[in-house]
Amino acid sequence: MGIVHGRRKSKGTAAERELMHKFWANGWAAVRAAGSGSTQFPCPDLIVGNNLRKLALEIKATKDKKKYFPKQEINDLKYFATKFGAEPWVVIKFDNKGFYFIMLEDLEETTASFVASFEIAERRGLTFEELVK
Amino acid sequence: MGIVHGRRKSKGTAAERELMHKFWANGWAAVRAAGSGSTQFPCPDLIVGNNLRKLALEIKATKDKKKYFPKQEINDLKYFATKFGAEPWVVIKFDNKGFYFIMLEDLEETTASFVASFEIAERRGLTFEELVK
Repeated sequence: MGIVHGRRKSKGTAAERELMHKFWANGWAAVRAAGSGSTQFPCPDLIVGNNLRKLALEIKATKDKKKYFPKQEINDLKYFATKFGAEPWVVIKFDNKGFYFIMLEDLEETTASFVASFEIAERRGLTFEELVK
Repeated sequence: MGIVHGRRKSKGTAAERELMHKFWANGWAAVRAAGSGSTQFPCPDLIVGNNLRKLALEIKATKDKKKYFPKQEINDLKYFATKFGAEPWVVIKFDNKGFYFIMLEDLEETTASFVASFEIAERRGLTFEELVK
């Protein structure tokens, strides 16, 4: 579990950093949040903004065809975004497919989780270029 | 130097956390930025927002009567705030006096630094309550 967890975590962190670079390269400012998941306050992985928009992003990377989000994680994202005044988005980097931005309403809901499948990402999600244009 | 630096740093971090609590308690959302001072992108200590305003904050705590900011730090704060679409503020917690929010235009400029004195903070700065009201 230790190594698997470590790999997963660094894969997610690498995706956050890559996305941070992409936003800066497109004229936005981006900040990774400290202590995501470890403070008493809800906190997204990345906050990005320009003069028109502010986005609160929860980011995952996966080699699979779908990704599960604990309900609490999505509820926290929604709560943070409402308080901060930002758009909440889930971002998934599917291996070899790049980033997809998915609105919370487009996630599938199960008893314990919200699910983002590659199928939904392709059908309803936005690529980076679509999101920023 | 090691211990002094460590104390200074934790004193600054404690001030950031305290301020974070105050913003949340007043209905704002606040996030500490990861890797402030250690990434290639400019990044403030704290980003706070509500539905009306977004603030990018550089925070220091001091027992002295004035605090120096390297010019690069203030220039980075201004650059970040412009890109992100936020108000840039310097925040200083003077021992036993609480937090003062100071606009960048109100800092004194020397050859190498920007300086915020307690005198300026009192005359031109805002307390937390004044800032959020």
